[in-house]
Amino acid sequence: MEKYSFKNDYSEGAHPAILQKLVETNLTQTIGYGEDEFCDEARELIKKQLKKEAEIHFVSGGTQANLIVISSILKPYESVIAAETGHIAVHETGAIEATGHKINTIATSDGKISAIQIEKVLKLHTDEHMVKPKMVYISNSTEVGSVYTKAELKSIYNFCQENNLILFVDGARLGSALTSSKCDLTLEDMANLCDVFYIGGTKNGALIGEAIVFNKLDLNENFRFHIKQKGGMLAKGRLIGIQFSELFRNDLFFEMGKHANKMAEKLAKNISNKGFEFLTEPSSNQIFPIFPNELIAKLQHHFEFFVWEKIDEEKSAIRLVTSWATSEEKVEYFIQSI
Amino acid sequence: MEKYSFKNDYSEGAHPAILQKLVETNLTQTIGYGEDEFCDEARELIKKQLKKEAEIHFVSGGTQANLIVISSILKPYESVIAAETGHIAVHETGAIEATGHKINTIATSDGKISAIQIEKVLKLHTDEHMVKPKMVYISNSTEVGSVYTKAELKSIYNFCQENNLILFVDGARLGSALTSSKCDLTLEDMANLCDVFYIGGTKNGALIGEAIVFNKLDLNENFRFHIKQKGGMLAKGRLIGIQFSELFRNDLFFEMGKHANKMAEKLAKNISNKGFEFLTEPSSNQIFPIFPNELIAKLQHHFEFFVWEKIDEEKSAIRLVTSWATSEEKVEYFIQSI
Amino acid sequence: MEKYSFKNDYSEGAHPAILQKLVETNLTQTIGYGEDEFCDEARELIKKQLKKEAEIHFVSGGTQANLIVISSILKPYESVIAAETGHIAVHETGAIEATGHKINTIATSDGKISAIQIEKVLKLHTDEHMVKPKMVYISNSTEVGSVYTKAELKSIYNFCQENNLILFVDGARLGSALTSSKCDLTLEDMANLCDVFYIGGTKNGALIGEAIVFNKLDLNENFRFHIKQKGGMLAKGRLIGIQFSELFRNDLFFEMGKHANKMAEKLAKNISNKGFEFLTEPSSNQIFPIFPNELIAKLQHHFEFFVWEKIDEEKSAIRLVTSWATSEEKVEYFIQSI
Amino acid sequence: MEKYSFKNDYSEGAHPAILQKLVETNLTQTIGYGEDEFCDEARELIKKQLKKEAEIHFVSGGTQANLIVISSILKPYESVIAAETGHIAVHETGAIEATGHKINTIATSDGKISAIQIEKVLKLHTDEHMVKPKMVYISNSTEVGSVYTKAELKSIYNFCQENNLILFVDGARLGSALTSSKCDLTLEDMANLCDVFYIGGTKNGALIGEAIVFNKLDLNENFRFHIKQKGGMLAKGRLIGIQFSELFRNDLFFEMGKHANKMAEKLAKNISNKGFEFLTEPSSNQIFPIFPNELIAKLQHHFEFFVWEKIDEEKSAIRLVTSWATSEEKVEYFIQSI
Repeated sequence: MEKYSFKNDYSEGAHPAILQKLVETNLTQTIGYGEDEFCDEARELIKKQLKKEAEIHFVSGGTQANLIVISSILKPYESVIAAETGHIAVHETGAIEATGHKINTIATSDGKISAIQIEKVLKLHTDEHMVKPKMVYISNSTEVGSVYTKAELKSIYNFCQENNLILFVDGARLGSALTSSKCDLTLEDMANLCDVFYIGGTKNGALIGEAIVFNKLDLNENFRFHIKQKGGMLAKGRLIGIQFSELFRNDLFFEMGKHANKMAEKLAKNISNKGFEFLTEPSSNQIFPIFPNELIAKLQHHFEFFVWEKIDEEKSAIRLVTSWATSEEKVEYFIQSI
Repeated sequence: MEKYSFKNDYSEGAHPAILQKLVETNLTQTIGYGEDEFCDEARELIKKQLKKEAEIHFVSGGTQANLIVISSILKPYESVIAAETGHIAVHETGAIEATGHKINTIATSDGKISAIQIEKVLKLHTDEHMVKPKMVYISNSTEVGSVYTKAELKSIYNFCQENNLILFVDGARLGSALTSSKCDLTLEDMANLCDVFYIGGTKNGALIGEAIVFNKLDLNENFRFHIKQKGGMLAKGRLIGIQFSELFRNDLFFEMGKHANKMAEKLAKNISNKGFEFLTEPSSNQIFPIFPNELIAKLQHHFEFFVWEKIDEEKSAIRLVTSWATSEEKVEYFIQSI
Repeated sequence: MEKYSFKNDYSEGAHPAILQKLVETNLTQTIGYGEDEFCDEARELIKKQLKKEAEIHFVSGGTQANLIVISSILKPYESVIAAETGHIAVHETGAIEATGHKINTIATSDGKISAIQIEKVLKLHTDEHMVKPKMVYISNSTEVGSVYTKAELKSIYNFCQENNLILFVDGARLGSALTSSKCDLTLEDMANLCDVFYIGGTKNGALIGEAIVFNKLDLNENFRFHIKQKGGMLAKGRLIGIQFSELFRNDLFFEMGKHANKMAEKLAKNISNKGFEFLTEPSSNQIFPIFPNELIAKLQHHFEFFVWEKIDEEKSAIRLVTSWATSEEKVEYFIQSI
Repeated sequence: MEKYSFKNDYSEGAHPAILQKLVETNLTQTIGYGEDEFCDEARELIKKQLKKEAEIHFVSGGTQANLIVISSILKPYESVIAAETGHIAVHETGAIEATGHKINTIATSDGKISAIQIEKVLKLHTDEHMVKPKMVYISNSTEVGSVYTKAELKSIYNFCQENNLILFVDGARLGSALTSSKCDLTLEDMANLCDVFYIGGTKNGALIGEAIVFNKLDLNENFRFHIKQKGGMLAKGRLIGIQFSELFRNDLFFEMGKHANKMAEKLAKNISNKGFEFLTEPSSNQIFPIFPNELIAKLQHHFEFFVWEKIDEEKSAIRLVTSWATSEEKVEYFIQSI
């Protein structure tokens, strides 16, 4: 590809430190299926940051994490509540329904939902002729780049606990969320403000891999059966263990998130300075500037990105995504090209 | 681990040439989800060996390949026929049933099934009160190390074609099968003697990855929807594309299979020379010698392996698995230790 | 129950002519599972009215009909489009999702959807990361009592045919719809303006039973396997065959629909004359008058009905349902009680 | 049909007392979905015989009862153990697998299984790579006419309780089993020797209907959601309630079972006296005499029955089924025809 891509945060391979570790450990023999010492080390390193007991499992991708977690927890007649824009509701080809469960959706302008909205859904579901909502799914950061604050997450989790609902946070882009200037949450907070979440590796510098973290330990019962049954248990589980060890041995995971955010902020600030608006407030490593169609056409000669949504006959919102690998030079080139 | 492991063929990472390629290509930007140029190249390299049109998809593991392929082809009331020892029948935690389909099993002494046995299953299924068998699943090599000959595979495929059955070959260990001295099949034959099969990377030198090959092209329709829905579509699809390019650029895939077989043969020949018998005839990279229990206990001080099956009060069969990474020196050490 | 119930159209048993036929035929021996001569006769009587070839199957209830039809037609990644108020979307406890399929819903004020709305849903679904809409589900009459006209149904069916979508009409209350003064459709029209529909017996004078009618004959392939697998095949299939024979031998089915409508119209006209409004325009055997809360409380001393929806602090809409068995005397008593 | 049928026990309608009750109660208004007073009365009458607290639900058929009960209890990765000849394993078109669960089958000569056989299955299932057996399914009487004694059932239930397995008894033909001279079980015993069972109405004189009985009360939690989701909740639930009230108001259920058994015994005794053997020992209302093929051909001129199994070139086993409606005169005619 000759054009520089801001299409997503999985355009490159992995952070070089991760690759190097794969090379170094390559001939060490381990047992399979995620029970090796590299996975164990990764679990310990993550738990050290959570400062709490937790059960941790590694799977290869986000849709896989979502479908395994959700189907492992819900009974056949139970449903999960999500934003209308939620990844599970739109971009997973019906993966959750394929495991037998309805998603109750909530309309939202910024990708985020609130306790009040969840309560409305609950009130509509009164008897056995309807599904029984049992779980709330949110993404942080969301599919449109917004982030939840600690107060917002607390409010949702309190409501869930009062109403016997499980709270699940999709953290495909948790690295960018937790290092966003708009988000006051830490990884330690994630251990206390939801029942289960996953830490995204694929979109934050790993070749592959997401770490599912059960804060509520009884949800973990026989979870390995679920992973295996859904095709999510890698024979060479070490592949993900080695990577998460590197991500959390020092601060690599957070440093990469910070870099992605810094690049997105630089883009956003300069775009804003040039007088353009945004579809949603820039908050993490996905930003959605609104540009005239001619400018978009011009930019497409040099850059790859998604045209997200038509605004009117003259303008559209585009999506720019930055990552650990985004080159500051290319960011500057993009800014100059506007 | 201080003991040397013959437990399986996924104890180490990947062949060094594969890792090197991952390092070299690391910062090349690509689009996601298996539509990048590395995946395309891998597909072309495989098709060159198949000498035939085919549709090829990459997924991360064997259970995933099996469940996606089978559920994509069968209608809700259709079933798949497999050996009682078939991987899908025993070792996938009900993954096929979880997609809604019954497995009709056939008892077998050597892990292989025949057209006559398949016919008997068909004859038992006569109306809408029973499932309708529509697919035959075999593994090559099988779960107990045996391999199908060309004549055997032809006979099964002819029967399937005459009876409107789809033939699916699980090739988790196809590398060892195709390079076995007991098996006269080539990769080109696989393009002509079944409707769909997969080429196992995980158990033959890749970090991860299986290549699903549709010979019968209409089975491919909208297959990417199935991969995505079941959580099998990697954002960084390149991870598997790069590896399969290396496996099939030259003969690395076959060379690794040959090495594994050579090590297994050396073990088998020497074990046999020392007067021991085998549970099944040594044919590929899994062999099952029968040892006195004291000998097994002694070997366990220095080696890791599975104790497969109790034979009588004094003896048990163990499973020894070799791979591309098996050290000839350790093989010799094992032989001396008997 | 001492209060008279307008709660639903399944409060009583069956039309006496049906019961009498059950008694008369009771000791006739038949084969099971819907292949008996009573079922065959019922099929012929229905086809005579359709004036067209069709394949007809009997099942015991509406949710069962919906889930078997929909899951028999859709591939795993395909979805069904329905009104947000559609029975399958709200009142079947996730039955469709339990067979693995997403429902794409359309917001609607009167329970009806249009080709333009369907087109919008199609346009949102562009690739394999999303489900693929393949079917449109409508109810006639709808869950809020409205009916489709011939022009409306034609417009939807034309759109479906142009876009390779299957049109399925839920006719749980088709008897009331087809005899409504607001609906110019006939049973013969139903044979030409959709791919599959069902004729509701339970809500129109039968003890039990719905007749699924495939106009598009290739959808019928192996359908009996689906019925059996989902638990919908009655051993004594005759129970439904005998009833549908009676419903369609003469015009009993339509006469009962007419009576229900006549009672609903009488209620509606008099309620309207007394100055009350309706949530939706009275069109079939379900009407939704808006009453002051005190009046509702007063009526509840003598009648059973659902309080459907709060309108404001003072008023609510209630649902009144009439049937073949509704007594004109009780209708008059209700009117006097307002 | 001019030939007299011994094909099954659902050839006729219902016992006349049941039809009469349907006629008598026809215009009584009730609420729907099994919450009416007829269903309540039926539950109380059954519980009086069980002499114990229980939760009771009515559904329309046996496959439906099996699939709803089993899928309501098992977690996604759990399986059910059954005889190879079990109805769920063979004659339900994969209904259990369609809800996502594997059936672990046990080979058996007489349709019955034992604790020792169940234990063998458990021992094979050791970790998360395999399903986890959690339920045992047996039928009484079995699909080949045999019955469990009290000692046999106790032994199985003890084993289940010790091993944390749920025991489910399919009672499609429980009426014949409990009144068989070979079976010393009572309905009261059924309340103490399993966790859940169902009482078959369809095959013992009802038009339709099976009563699911939960002895283990916590299995009942939210069970109505499961019934509704699987399409098993009849709007006119009264249809089954009225019938079961009649079945258990006095001893109608048992009297009908006795009559069926008496007719089967008369057939069996006379067939035996004429020197013929049986495939399985005659024990309930299904018997399997072995006849020369010419005799079978001759009998087929006057009677309907299934040819069950070829014994050798000259002989086959046939299945004769009697019911509450079987005419003693026709039984005598059959005996004379041999």
